[in-house]
Amino acid sequence: MDTVGAGGASRAFAALGLVLPPPPAPKGVYKPLVVIDRMVLVSGHGPLLPDGRLLKGRVGRDLDEQAGKEAARQVGLAILATLIAGLGSLDRIGRVVKVLGMVNATADFTRHPAVINGCSELFAAVWGADRGIGVRSAVGMACLPDDIPVEIEAAFELA
Amino acid sequence: MDTVGAGGASRAFAALGLVLPPPPAPKGVYKPLVVIDRMVLVSGHGPLLPDGRLLKGRVGRDLDEQAGKEAARQVGLAILATLIAGLGSLDRIGRVVKVLGMVNATADFTRHPAVINGCSELFAAVWGADRGIGVRSAVGMACLPDDIPVEIEAAFELA
Amino acid sequence: MDTVGAGGASRAFAALGLVLPPPPAPKGVYKPLVVIDRMVLVSGHGPLLPDGRLLKGRVGRDLDEQAGKEAARQVGLAILATLIAGLGSLDRIGRVVKVLGMVNATADFTRHPAVINGCSELFAAVWGADRGIGVRSAVGMACLPDDIPVEIEAAFELA
Repeated sequence: MDTVGAGGASRAFAALGLVLPPPPAPKGVYKPLVVIDRMVLVSGHGPLLPDGRLLKGRVGRDLDEQAGKEAARQVGLAILATLIAGLGSLDRIGRVVKVLGMVNATADFTRHPAVINGCSELFAAVWGADRGIGVRSAVGMACLPDDIPVEIEAAFELA
Repeated sequence: MDTVGAGGASRAFAALGLVLPPPPAPKGVYKPLVVIDRMVLVSGHGPLLPDGRLLKGRVGRDLDEQAGKEAARQVGLAILATLIAGLGSLDRIGRVVKVLGMVNATADFTRHPAVINGCSELFAAVWGADRGIGVRSAVGMACLPDDIPVEIEAAFELA
Repeated sequence: MDTVGAGGASRAFAALGLVLPPPPAPKGVYKPLVVIDRMVLVSGHGPLLPDGRLLKGRVGRDLDEQAGKEAARQVGLAILATLIAGLGSLDRIGRVVKVLGMVNATADFTRHPAVINGCSELFAAVWGADRGIGVRSAVGMACLPDDIPVEIEAAFELA
């Protein structure tokens, strides 16, 4: 049984005591969020901080696994900010459908799933261990925009 | 309000005066386009030229940012050719839902969004600044088929 | 006309005489498979062997094109194992919608489509040359979890 009831996502997030960054402005010709039928798609997000700066660097060189995981959690917070800005409330989301986690990583890095868990554990805390977890791929990129360590795109289903 | 009315995508494209490549033949076991319910998905496309050749090279080494952007526009033209071949007309598309822009880039490259804008600005010119723009990720790959500089896959909604 | 009739996917697979690996356990905070409306999404899968080990190494350095293709077929088998574990039977799948094939490849590798064909040819043998083939992207990654040579995520439509 799920630990977070329907409509409880906002309360669950508030209980975490985390600070959201501002909803990120697009850095190119795209929308942060699109709703199609009952699906909500969000663009690739980076680790935006509350002061508007982005975390930077390559995992395996500039960031270790734990710092990479914290960067992925920060990406998750940026996605939450986009959902709130676009839909009004995290309670509008019924469940997480899909996460594509892309890590800016050195060629010898192999712990992408542990890094992307930083985002996935946040979503599970907000929407619960069933509805907060979807399918996922976690992979290593040659480089990312602005030299961010993690970029994540995601799909959700409306409540 | 949108600058391109319903059914006006073909006219908007004609007004751009651009030349389409032939619809690309699959280079493996896949279909160029699949329609599922109201969604149209297209396979990863490369920068196919009207004479059937592909642009090649790595952005940040063989192509600068502007040449990469022109390559991304050429990928967009190849996607338009696939849509016309598969659906009969660009007017069958109601809106752009999603773009995944993958740049064959050097490790220090950070301007992926500017490159992928070459495709996104084309779509916005064809379908308008609202319906022609969806969610997007722009990321850097270690390598791409045939050493193409950009590969893009996309999702659209039928009109 | 399709070579594999409705309900014939299980028989077609049995006729191939291939051995499935066990359905892979998640290596992070994600589900192997999600059903949403008539779509079935599977997480990124690696080349899991029947004995539970993963194939490892980089294509273009540790694996040649043919070994990479066999790894991609093994990824396809792992996806089939997940579908059977999650849905009960391959006959529940009506068609393949999408494949995203990610190859852990050296910077000079250019034959990603030939590698990912290892998975796509398996799907075509199971569900037939029409329903077994969807859209696809095949691209090169800087690195993958556990140094696997190929990671593939896929989308299917229920029968």
